[in-house]
Amino acid sequence: MKKFDAKSLARPNIRSLRAYEAKEMPCRVKLDANESPFGFKVRQSVIKRISTNRYPDPEARALRGALAKQLEVKPPNILVGNGSDEIIYYLITTFGGPVLFPVPTFSMYGIIGKALGESIIGLPLDGSFDLDLPLMLGALKTARPKLTFLSSPNNPTGNCFSSDRMLKVIESSSALVVVDEAYQPFSSDKGFLPMLKDYKNLLILRTLSKVGLAGLRTGYLIGDEAIINEVNKVRLPFNLNSYSQAIAVSAIEDRKAMRSAIKAVVSERERLFEALEGIKAATPYPSEANFILFKVKNSRRVYNKLLKQGVLLRDMSGAVDGCLRVTVGTKAENNFFLKALKEVAR
Amino acid sequence: MKKFDAKSLARPNIRSLRAYEAKEMPCRVKLDANESPFGFKVRQSVIKRISTNRYPDPEARALRGALAKQLEVKPPNILVGNGSDEIIYYLITTFGGPVLFPVPTFSMYGIIGKALGESIIGLPLDGSFDLDLPLMLGALKTARPKLTFLSSPNNPTGNCFSSDRMLKVIESSSALVVVDEAYQPFSSDKGFLPMLKDYKNLLILRTLSKVGLAGLRTGYLIGDEAIINEVNKVRLPFNLNSYSQAIAVSAIEDRKAMRSAIKAVVSERERLFEALEGIKAATPYPSEANFILFKVKNSRRVYNKLLKQGVLLRDMSGAVDGCLRVTVGTKAENNFFLKALKEVAR
Repeated sequence: MKKFDAKSLARPNIRSLRAYEAKEMPCRVKLDANESPFGFKVRQSVIKRISTNRYPDPEARALRGALAKQLEVKPPNILVGNGSDEIIYYLITTFGGPVLFPVPTFSMYGIIGKALGESIIGLPLDGSFDLDLPLMLGALKTARPKLTFLSSPNNPTGNCFSSDRMLKVIESSSALVVVDEAYQPFSSDKGFLPMLKDYKNLLILRTLSKVGLAGLRTGYLIGDEAIINEVNKVRLPFNLNSYSQAIAVSAIEDRKAMRSAIKAVVSERERLFEALEGIKAATPYPSEANFILFKVKNSRRVYNKLLKQGVLLRDMSGAVDGCLRVTVGTKAENNFFLKALKEVAR
Repeated sequence: MKKFDAKSLARPNIRSLRAYEAKEMPCRVKLDANESPFGFKVRQSVIKRISTNRYPDPEARALRGALAKQLEVKPPNILVGNGSDEIIYYLITTFGGPVLFPVPTFSMYGIIGKALGESIIGLPLDGSFDLDLPLMLGALKTARPKLTFLSSPNNPTGNCFSSDRMLKVIESSSALVVVDEAYQPFSSDKGFLPMLKDYKNLLILRTLSKVGLAGLRTGYLIGDEAIINEVNKVRLPFNLNSYSQAIAVSAIEDRKAMRSAIKAVVSERERLFEALEGIKAATPYPSEANFILFKVKNSRRVYNKLLKQGVLLRDMSGAVDGCLRVTVGTKAENNFFLKALKEVAR
């Protein structure tokens, strides 16, 4: 071997990228990652049935069956992934770019699009964090994106986009529109599942990560069978391990527990929102998700001061000027956060 | 939306692909997938420590630490993946093609290369299932592959390639060579880890799937830190879930259990090999892995007849003429297989 430079060996589009940084920050109250504050109690009988030495079911039949029943679709309409992230990876691998999305939104559409060497188009939301329809329709016409991602409720803004604008985007796209409903369980809106029968180019992306099972990495895509078939061609056969499959099934079947955890988060969100409204230096944005975006003076300083007190939020200043994002925690965690915020935000 | 055809939306390289088929076949003795016949006993205390609602450690520090210690490398030299499959995906995403490998070999190099739209070059092994060096060196020179995959011990042939030929390939490559040591634990050869310090373009791929933990989907890549850094740029931050991480750590730390399971498989392999040699219609090839490839008259018929008796093997006729592959099972499973084979192979 002659000369050797790792970076110059990588594809040109990779060279300028940086690895995703997800540093673990020591903290007392972790409200940065939109996780549920409530864990799911895994029954020992579920674990005991798993054979560690056998490959997982490559078709995840039990899991897709349980999801199909819950969502009132058929198993061939469902593809499961190692988190929504992996499904985004597969979608872009299958259909390519350009990849269109509004900004700010979930960062992985852009990150994965870039990693796969596709062109990405991020178009600003309007002043109410809703879709800027003229902008979106213009881009659909001129750039003809293969994939458009609409996260609704949107992360980090917390709102749902107007249904009529979303429908207009779906209708105007000559390719696929993925409605990412990661936060739909916390929304009063029932989401786009009922629209699947009318729009063959619509895909719905969901996940168990926000409803108590982030540790499992289980996302799922729902859509027309022909589309799912194409994505299946690039899916790794054993992409969802035996633990994820088995525990996800038992969690889905235990609807009561999941529903009551979601209800508790929604009720805490309402309380947290009101409390934030009562803090002079803070202005929260209405949320249909399990987090609240709020504007606060000297946001970066407030973020750091909160961290010093043991409260970890997500600093969103880069995406929305002067804003922090707080995940809804338990009542005690939220109170701890509110008390700290009152002290540091002035 | 106007006209809509799912297939024509997919990238041209995807359209002609077929989804990986991994049908579940009902059987009594499952000897098709190179799984260990021995499960790993997962301690309840390991499971109990996992928070289902929290994201897994994106850097898998405990697992990479345990692996680094075992392999006598440093954590920055290790990247973990959701099975070796995912790491192959990431490697090809990062470095692109052409992708070179000998054939027959592990099918995923070609399958993933195609899914990612790269050109793949499969060069036949020589008559002893060893690398055909003139062929390989010629292709390295003319096609200048970005990635060369050498599975050693090779699947499905079972042999290790000659070290001197492998070294020659590594030395002659102007890019990366990945030595896939999925089956190394069953080999008397100590593998290529000691070569890492001499060859910056060498990467070693390993997995826990063959040593009792296929259900976890845990693979790992070992190599120069600069290379690992590049691959990390396309790695999804939460690619290995909390269960895989925690259980893998406890399995690695329980070296005694893993070693004794491996020893049992190797000893059964030797016995199985001799028994196959004693069956007139069958000709086994020497194996350094946890499976044996054997030639048998009317292989497809024998395969089907065995299946009827409840024994599932892998039909390798497509890759090596007239050959079946049997995974080493427990003593009882191997005896059941041998008895059935004696009856059906004539």
